[in-house]
Amino acid sequence: MDLVKLFKPKSMAVVGISKKNPLSPGRIVLLKNEFEMNVKVYGIYPTAGEIEGIQLYERLDKLPEMPDLLVIAVGPDDTLGYIQDCADLGIPASVVIGGGFAEIGGKGIKRQQELEKIAFENDLAVLGPNCLGVYAPPIVDTIFLPTERITRPPRGSVALISQSGGVLVDQFFVKFNERNIGVSTAVSIGNRAVVDESMLLKYFSTVDKETSNIAFYLEGFKEGKAREFLQLAKESEDTVIVFFGGKTREGKVATQSHTASLAGNYRIIYAALRQHYIIQPHSERELLTSLKVYDILSKRRNPFGDNVVTYGDVTIVSVSGGHAVLASDMLKTYGLNAIRFTRQEKKDLKERMNPVAREIASFNNPIDLTGSVLDTDIENIIRYLSDIERIECIILLLLPYPPNISFQIGRRIANIVSSKNKPVVCFVPYVPKYSLIIESLELANIPVFHSIKETVQAVSALKHRTRITNIKQGNIHWE
Amino acid sequence: MDLVKLFKPKSMAVVGISKKNPLSPGRIVLLKNEFEMNVKVYGIYPTAGEIEGIQLYERLDKLPEMPDLLVIAVGPDDTLGYIQDCADLGIPASVVIGGGFAEIGGKGIKRQQELEKIAFENDLAVLGPNCLGVYAPPIVDTIFLPTERITRPPRGSVALISQSGGVLVDQFFVKFNERNIGVSTAVSIGNRAVVDESMLLKYFSTVDKETSNIAFYLEGFKEGKAREFLQLAKESEDTVIVFFGGKTREGKVATQSHTASLAGNYRIIYAALRQHYIIQPHSERELLTSLKVYDILSKRRNPFGDNVVTYGDVTIVSVSGGHAVLASDMLKTYGLNAIRFTRQEKKDLKERMNPVAREIASFNNPIDLTGSVLDTDIENIIRYLSDIERIECIILLLLPYPPNISFQIGRRIANIVSSKNKPVVCFVPYVPKYSLIIESLELANIPVFHSIKETVQAVSALKHRTRITNIKQGNIHWE
Repeated sequence: MDLVKLFKPKSMAVVGISKKNPLSPGRIVLLKNEFEMNVKVYGIYPTAGEIEGIQLYERLDKLPEMPDLLVIAVGPDDTLGYIQDCADLGIPASVVIGGGFAEIGGKGIKRQQELEKIAFENDLAVLGPNCLGVYAPPIVDTIFLPTERITRPPRGSVALISQSGGVLVDQFFVKFNERNIGVSTAVSIGNRAVVDESMLLKYFSTVDKETSNIAFYLEGFKEGKAREFLQLAKESEDTVIVFFGGKTREGKVATQSHTASLAGNYRIIYAALRQHYIIQPHSERELLTSLKVYDILSKRRNPFGDNVVTYGDVTIVSVSGGHAVLASDMLKTYGLNAIRFTRQEKKDLKERMNPVAREIASFNNPIDLTGSVLDTDIENIIRYLSDIERIECIILLLLPYPPNISFQIGRRIANIVSSKNKPVVCFVPYVPKYSLIIESLELANIPVFHSIKETVQAVSALKHRTRITNIKQGNIHWE
Repeated sequence: MDLVKLFKPKSMAVVGISKKNPLSPGRIVLLKNEFEMNVKVYGIYPTAGEIEGIQLYERLDKLPEMPDLLVIAVGPDDTLGYIQDCADLGIPASVVIGGGFAEIGGKGIKRQQELEKIAFENDLAVLGPNCLGVYAPPIVDTIFLPTERITRPPRGSVALISQSGGVLVDQFFVKFNERNIGVSTAVSIGNRAVVDESMLLKYFSTVDKETSNIAFYLEGFKEGKAREFLQLAKESEDTVIVFFGGKTREGKVATQSHTASLAGNYRIIYAALRQHYIIQPHSERELLTSLKVYDILSKRRNPFGDNVVTYGDVTIVSVSGGHAVLASDMLKTYGLNAIRFTRQEKKDLKERMNPVAREIASFNNPIDLTGSVLDTDIENIIRYLSDIERIECIILLLLPYPPNISFQIGRRIANIVSSKNKPVVCFVPYVPKYSLIIESLELANIPVFHSIKETVQAVSALKHRTRITNIKQGNIHWE
């Protein structure tokens, strides 16, 4: 089954366009691909004509060429006719937006079985039904919500696969954009009658070169496909992350009424995923934090192969004592350890500070540089710590409020980190006026977070990912 | 001890001004109060003269009037001299910014004892040492960080007291501003040699009328004062919230080096606080979520006296199935229950929807209205649910992406909520283009959150607060 045609079509057609209703899903998809994306677009309308200057064709067989992809935005019974047309005319990929299939039970289940039969017999890559489809920039976007209403994430290394379209465009797109996490392709799989999570895992692991992190929001595995998914994940060189919805009894009631899927016993699933080196965040925030750090590190050569943060031995550097306390409180929960400095190291650290701050700063771990800090103090301390081999990662809590911290501080830190190659994860408050500092750091692939918890979580995610690479390479074993 | 002079001074003087260094703390405090705040400001400088047009005086006894408040931004030994001056000249309140006291141990402890002696013998309200002091809009601001570098929160009902200045201006100010949580007065207590958390709790509970929620960030109680604090909290009609830093061994190492305070055994403290009806958030996010909902509700008459959300019986209304699943998953963790609808109620709900959405919507609890929803559907459903007595709160997950949802939706919901008086807590994605919807809701005192978890947490916080009121009134007992 050729998923390339689904995600990188040269041409597409849309059926289910309304001439009267400018907000009909088919019409929105037609226009957004014609005006915003990089694919040749054809519209199908029984009496032909045109919409916004786009010529329409009466039927699929009247098109000047057979498209790679058909977007089907019609009722469920008509949908089956179009799937048959794809088989007859040789259209290899399609997206079925409409519902009325397995999710409604009864006759819907039968319809979905018919759809599956045609698709599998003719090797058609059908996505859906009951889905938003594909967002594969810069080529194609079948999300029938007006682009100006939603938020598109930046481009990057993460393939996103979601069983809920709403979660995809809201929880993922909005929060990826806030956190500057990059997406290669986003897929709403809906009822996943044909194209399912295992096929997508295989495609993004082996075919798609832009992707190096694959994230799933699932409410359960497709029946009979869990084992295949687990095996594919174990073999993948990409990061595989699964976040489950519907883990509780209350959540299950909700999933049954919405995607006709059933979450299994979550404890059993959890153990199985862990054995197959699939990362399972405990919360949506942990998911986002992990993806952010993996996406940024994907920009580096050999990002997880250097044993960078294998044991979680860290040091905290702060300009606020309270922040240092809050971060220290979280270390253990996230499997991290504060290294202890020797007497000599404490002396060395103190000597590297300006005479005023030196007297009030504290050189335990956490290090509190205090509000009397200068740019050069931060530089000197980070440079010194970068050379201490037993520190695997520096957690820098950088509040730019003290008056002597300049707007160059981000670039200054970036220069040291780039030359020393010691992992540094930063906290900088999310205040637009400090964007210059944040951008300086992120341009050098230093991940910046805007809460202390996310900063600590990120280091933990880094440790977890490095350990998986090490385990797969036979260097260490699961504890 | 008169704290009114500390927070609402008519006049203030500043000592420790540098003519050479525009970034010296004393000079920043002098200028920001002269140019930005509503207090008469005097500067003290040994050779008098002027700075930025502000006349300076040689000594305190040369001032044309004795000020209510003295801000002391000099070294520790000179500080003691100025505290003696306050006693001799009758300056009732002061803020000691500088360090070099108990937090450094040794001679610092002795200095602090001297300071305490003068203050208590002369009934001086001394704040600090080693603190940022007071932000009491619109009157006075002793925070020595340039205003343009920090973020000021909006004005409102929350008094904030923090043992860490960094946590106050960053974790609180920045995040209060993001969430539109209002502050009455903010206090950085530093070493709390004289003015401590108990005095502040008493002042904000009984004297200050603007405050109805009192939030503390502490790393431990002042020695020998825990019992007094607990008793005051129990008697207070305001909401009392305490968030502790330094709960873990790692965190304790950090607190010792920064505020010379020691967190006790957290489990014992936790139980004691609970018995005295002090709210203890588990995370910074839960703290913020709670304060947001309490601050908004403080704008209503009798906000916690109506038994509004006593048992946590809720219903979830969503336009995205996945969001409904995620919210449902969290209910139990937060002590909330999804009520069950009767067959008749489900029928009634279905009838209130447009014919297209009605067929694909789901009317269990959670209710999934789907992306085919119209404004009028949301109105009809909320109006109907508002009349079901056993629903204590409606959790509305409002994604404005479906093309038929208009910009009036916030106002439309606000009108219903204002007339029906059923608590509604909303999720709306944090996207600037939807500010109009968010503001419509918040103008009607409907709390809006930007993550599903915070939305559910907020309802839980509401339940917790209502139960405390009920318990204090003898209506129910702690389970």
